[in-house]
Amino acid sequence: MGNSIGKSFTVTSFGESHGDCMGVIIDGCPAGLAVTAEDVQRELDKRRPGTGVLTTSRAEEDKVSILSGIFNGRTTGAPVCLLVWNRDVDSAQYQKMRFLPRPGHADYTAFIKYGGFNDFRGGGRFSGRTTAGFVMAGAVAKKLLGLIGIEVLAHTVAIGGIKAKPRAFSEIRENVDKNPVRCADLAAAGEMVSVIEQAKADGDSVGGVIEGIALNSPVGLGEPVFDTLEGDLAKALFAIPAVKGVEFGSGFGAAEKKGSENNDPFTISCGKIVTETNNAGGVLGGISNGMPIVVRVAVKPTPSIASSQQTVNIENMEGASLAIKGRHDACIVLRAVPVVESMKAVILSDFAIRAGLKPRVIK
Amino acid sequence: MGNSIGKSFTVTSFGESHGDCMGVIIDGCPAGLAVTAEDVQRELDKRRPGTGVLTTSRAEEDKVSILSGIFNGRTTGAPVCLLVWNRDVDSAQYQKMRFLPRPGHADYTAFIKYGGFNDFRGGGRFSGRTTAGFVMAGAVAKKLLGLIGIEVLAHTVAIGGIKAKPRAFSEIRENVDKNPVRCADLAAAGEMVSVIEQAKADGDSVGGVIEGIALNSPVGLGEPVFDTLEGDLAKALFAIPAVKGVEFGSGFGAAEKKGSENNDPFTISCGKIVTETNNAGGVLGGISNGMPIVVRVAVKPTPSIASSQQTVNIENMEGASLAIKGRHDACIVLRAVPVVESMKAVILSDFAIRAGLKPRVIK
Amino acid sequence: MGNSIGKSFTVTSFGESHGDCMGVIIDGCPAGLAVTAEDVQRELDKRRPGTGVLTTSRAEEDKVSILSGIFNGRTTGAPVCLLVWNRDVDSAQYQKMRFLPRPGHADYTAFIKYGGFNDFRGGGRFSGRTTAGFVMAGAVAKKLLGLIGIEVLAHTVAIGGIKAKPRAFSEIRENVDKNPVRCADLAAAGEMVSVIEQAKADGDSVGGVIEGIALNSPVGLGEPVFDTLEGDLAKALFAIPAVKGVEFGSGFGAAEKKGSENNDPFTISCGKIVTETNNAGGVLGGISNGMPIVVRVAVKPTPSIASSQQTVNIENMEGASLAIKGRHDACIVLRAVPVVESMKAVILSDFAIRAGLKPRVIK
Amino acid sequence: MGNSIGKSFTVTSFGESHGDCMGVIIDGCPAGLAVTAEDVQRELDKRRPGTGVLTTSRAEEDKVSILSGIFNGRTTGAPVCLLVWNRDVDSAQYQKMRFLPRPGHADYTAFIKYGGFNDFRGGGRFSGRTTAGFVMAGAVAKKLLGLIGIEVLAHTVAIGGIKAKPRAFSEIRENVDKNPVRCADLAAAGEMVSVIEQAKADGDSVGGVIEGIALNSPVGLGEPVFDTLEGDLAKALFAIPAVKGVEFGSGFGAAEKKGSENNDPFTISCGKIVTETNNAGGVLGGISNGMPIVVRVAVKPTPSIASSQQTVNIENMEGASLAIKGRHDACIVLRAVPVVESMKAVILSDFAIRAGLKPRVIK
Repeated sequence: MGNSIGKSFTVTSFGESHGDCMGVIIDGCPAGLAVTAEDVQRELDKRRPGTGVLTTSRAEEDKVSILSGIFNGRTTGAPVCLLVWNRDVDSAQYQKMRFLPRPGHADYTAFIKYGGFNDFRGGGRFSGRTTAGFVMAGAVAKKLLGLIGIEVLAHTVAIGGIKAKPRAFSEIRENVDKNPVRCADLAAAGEMVSVIEQAKADGDSVGGVIEGIALNSPVGLGEPVFDTLEGDLAKALFAIPAVKGVEFGSGFGAAEKKGSENNDPFTISCGKIVTETNNAGGVLGGISNGMPIVVRVAVKPTPSIASSQQTVNIENMEGASLAIKGRHDACIVLRAVPVVESMKAVILSDFAIRAGLKPRVIK
Repeated sequence: MGNSIGKSFTVTSFGESHGDCMGVIIDGCPAGLAVTAEDVQRELDKRRPGTGVLTTSRAEEDKVSILSGIFNGRTTGAPVCLLVWNRDVDSAQYQKMRFLPRPGHADYTAFIKYGGFNDFRGGGRFSGRTTAGFVMAGAVAKKLLGLIGIEVLAHTVAIGGIKAKPRAFSEIRENVDKNPVRCADLAAAGEMVSVIEQAKADGDSVGGVIEGIALNSPVGLGEPVFDTLEGDLAKALFAIPAVKGVEFGSGFGAAEKKGSENNDPFTISCGKIVTETNNAGGVLGGISNGMPIVVRVAVKPTPSIASSQQTVNIENMEGASLAIKGRHDACIVLRAVPVVESMKAVILSDFAIRAGLKPRVIK
Repeated sequence: MGNSIGKSFTVTSFGESHGDCMGVIIDGCPAGLAVTAEDVQRELDKRRPGTGVLTTSRAEEDKVSILSGIFNGRTTGAPVCLLVWNRDVDSAQYQKMRFLPRPGHADYTAFIKYGGFNDFRGGGRFSGRTTAGFVMAGAVAKKLLGLIGIEVLAHTVAIGGIKAKPRAFSEIRENVDKNPVRCADLAAAGEMVSVIEQAKADGDSVGGVIEGIALNSPVGLGEPVFDTLEGDLAKALFAIPAVKGVEFGSGFGAAEKKGSENNDPFTISCGKIVTETNNAGGVLGGISNGMPIVVRVAVKPTPSIASSQQTVNIENMEGASLAIKGRHDACIVLRAVPVVESMKAVILSDFAIRAGLKPRVIK
Repeated sequence: MGNSIGKSFTVTSFGESHGDCMGVIIDGCPAGLAVTAEDVQRELDKRRPGTGVLTTSRAEEDKVSILSGIFNGRTTGAPVCLLVWNRDVDSAQYQKMRFLPRPGHADYTAFIKYGGFNDFRGGGRFSGRTTAGFVMAGAVAKKLLGLIGIEVLAHTVAIGGIKAKPRAFSEIRENVDKNPVRCADLAAAGEMVSVIEQAKADGDSVGGVIEGIALNSPVGLGEPVFDTLEGDLAKALFAIPAVKGVEFGSGFGAAEKKGSENNDPFTISCGKIVTETNNAGGVLGGISNGMPIVVRVAVKPTPSIASSQQTVNIENMEGASLAIKGRHDACIVLRAVPVVESMKAVILSDFAIRAGLKPRVIK
């Protein structure tokens, strides 16, 4: 249970890290959207491991297959099934580790919850590879949002303690794909690379913070009191493995501010009502207010590290130690950036349809 | 739309701040639970404004009415409808402010989303008073969790920049209802009171941070990949007005840690597998791992402040200024503590039922 | 669980026959709909027992209370809570019958399912009185459909073996409220009254068939493959106690026809594509085709009869006999007519919103 | 939208008749169920066209591929994705007929609803081939029900006006797979074959009635008031193309009975409470009462017939005539029998999980 998200643009995830495939079904995508394999591939390629030391050496091609819901290059209104086949699979080490849950991983909880029947190979259903499905869904969502006029962006704002300086949206859009850590502040980006390389060398890992932004959102997305824009975005973002915190606008910083500082004054700009500041992160009362929707997610350091760690053998209930060999990222923040962007696009698409917004489809 | 939460223990919220009532329906509560009006009233009383300067002077009695689903003091398996009638309503000032959206409030977004048909009196549907319903639902959820053996707690950990020192669970349980700011660190509590009083005197407001804890949770609550324990808790917590951030365990702090620091080593204690630290906040892979489930929420400073603020008249699209008179809290953190506890209880109840846990009902 | 229906226009039912009230919450009703207590009362009055021998002598006033979601005579976009208070309650006999399940009633299944904690008084949650809630929701739905241009009708087509002759829609609309059995064929109506009176005299009861019709539906309502127009309507209609069959268009009769007879040829009328016959009952592939949506429901004879019946005492597991005194209808078909109309209106409203149709709200 | 059914055992359907595949995802299947490709294939084979004149000559191999959720022969608790690839596809004729909606088919409604973007080849999403997915889901559901002890059966009770005589459950179980029309009354079966052959020879088609039975169901399945056993089963059965009516127990026949005839007296048999008759079809108040759950569905005659029919060209809005060549069944009742059985198994599985029943999984 729990593998679907969205009420009107519903994304269902399936597949395992070392099974046949990772896939996704989108139900509720309006008919007539032009979506090609290339559109999806472009997004998928962003989350593929790079070639440098920064990322895993698992060399999945991750080529999208469109199984249903697209006909003559357009969505049909039927469920869209997209998947990538798993090919470069090396499950040998996982068999050995089956009863040795890795600290910080879902091995232990999955084993108990599913009575040991879970596919443990490569983390199975809990692998970061599930996010390949998220990104495929995001690719379709981004096409939909594009026709409505909404743009989504995401970028790295911190890695291993190095913080990026704020940058204009144009700079973010421009810079994010130009450096390996997807950070718009190129100076900070360089430092981040060093931090990751050092962690790698130390058999350790680092985390960071990603910011997602949505521009040109209309006023009115979000369905309070429970299906708030913040709540549904947060839920979607916590589906990304390693995310441990989500905040909007001034977020945790708001807790230290005065109301007079944190309230965003209304004013008129170009004939429209806007706020002078954006401490609300574009959301008031759980509903978009037309300002940029700004969310930040905390990504914990990858739990897979080469150093020896202490665990317990579930089978014989004895203490054990564990050093994870395998192919792992010393920092997954960079690869999570397109995933944050994707999940945000998915939820905004859901709210756009719920609000009755129709994409301008041209035949 | 969007006024229900939970898939198996479903809470539907209704009512407006200055309408007839605030209420809640719980669908999916198992039959046989002993629930009395007193059980619900006890929780409701915790979120009532106090008598001091710290809180609003709106003097609602907030006496629960049980309309359905409870018979002879036990839940029947049918929907439980609970409500409080609104009595001490003063709507006069809101009529005047109808076209003057208050900065930081939902006035503007609600007006646009609902075409001006929203009940604007007292914030209508977006009032903090919706949380009276949350607390009533939480009271039932806490009874359910009690029969399963899970305990939920919440306490204030920061207000207006003053941070509480960590306290043992026993101290939190002991101290939280003993001081007006519901902070377990009594020294910090005193400073928090001063900060609030100063804000009040300044016609301003302050925010803070609340921590929720669940003890004795079994391993296995949460339904990945989307209905994670973190995701569903976050969604529920963002339904509380003024919440702008949610984090679990080391949360945003994890972003600055190394994997070797942040991973919680497994060990055996009293014959059970536990972790030595709890940076995960009791959640691995979106599933409870048996450790305390620890979540923190950032509460922004109350947007209703007495100082003059800048806004726009929606009707004539002219700039305007606004000073909010009314009866308002200078800090809602203290009153939000039982609400955090309640929403946490609701979501844990939902997951407990989804996991097939049955309360030990004794006839 | 299971007390809500509709994905975008969601109706949640609550209340018990001899509890405080019977109520309903509608979540997802668009803002701006003019709905008055009179609008709802008019529909409620249709299902009230009459004054003659045909119906129960329980004399509930059934006056609607609007608890939320309507402000200044318009829906606000917030959940609409409507209820009727129970007043004329006589629970004495039910206490005696608690362990004697009435044949054909839900007493036995409810007792087992809810472990004996169910409110058994007057059938509790399984009483025909739940349909008072359905009718209140239907009243709001009919207002919504009216603004879209869809008209819903229902009428009795058979009672106790007496079958009405087909009548034109105009005659149905005209006649249905003019005779006590809500049958458009007035000659048959007279016979039906006799059949019911005879059943009453015999301490027995009769069933019948109700037809629901929706006129002026646009093409495109229904969301295959599972949320078909037929499937969702059927589900809603089976929520009416005593309904045991649902069919569309030629229905079970289609099973005996040839394809060449049953297929409805397409043709053009007034510039629009229509079908020459309507064996499909207005639904092709689970989607409305613009023709009248015609559904028929089989209503079983009321299980509450005065004659002695055989049952089992659940407490001591001994055979027993039972003669139901109380106040009961010898035929509930007539009172179920507005309920069929209401549930149809609810589901069509849900599909209309899902299809993005917007009511023409005039401020 | 609308391609998922079931709240706790959720089946999502995808794929088109002439696309790449027909598939299904099951979310919520408990971990540990032994499910092999052979288990699924056995069910799939039942709905494959036969070799005689009775069915279509489309020669799909329909070999199941298990894409996810099963590991080492057991379900893992993760989504189970099953599909059959489409191979024997002949789409040529559909291109020609694109603007000529076939009477009785979804061509017209799908074209309008999806703005002409629907995949029209072979009926696309509205093809009877979607039921291959239903049957794959049913295969898993039947394994689950088997571990709980529930048996599902379906058999043909009428074709083209020929009605089968009632047969004992043992005879139904025994005979249904032994004759081409899946009718337990072998004499009637012979006549049914003749009727179908005659229809085929005439370029026409016939419909029929299928009965589904569930044995050994516990008391308590079903979640009133809306998620009734009858309502959810009916919804699932209306997802089968060509189904136009659903009735339980005495069904439409109940409308002509007296209460004293239709009520099923309770009695004790082998220490358990049972009813002497089963006019209720095993459902009281929307909840299973432990008796056989008996449902009948009306299947209309296949709309695809060789005779010339009248339609309208959607493109130029002119009248047209149409003779369907292609490969079609003169009667789909026989092939729909395993589909009825499957959908019934799916819904019962959903209710079993909702009721907290756990399959007896042996490691």
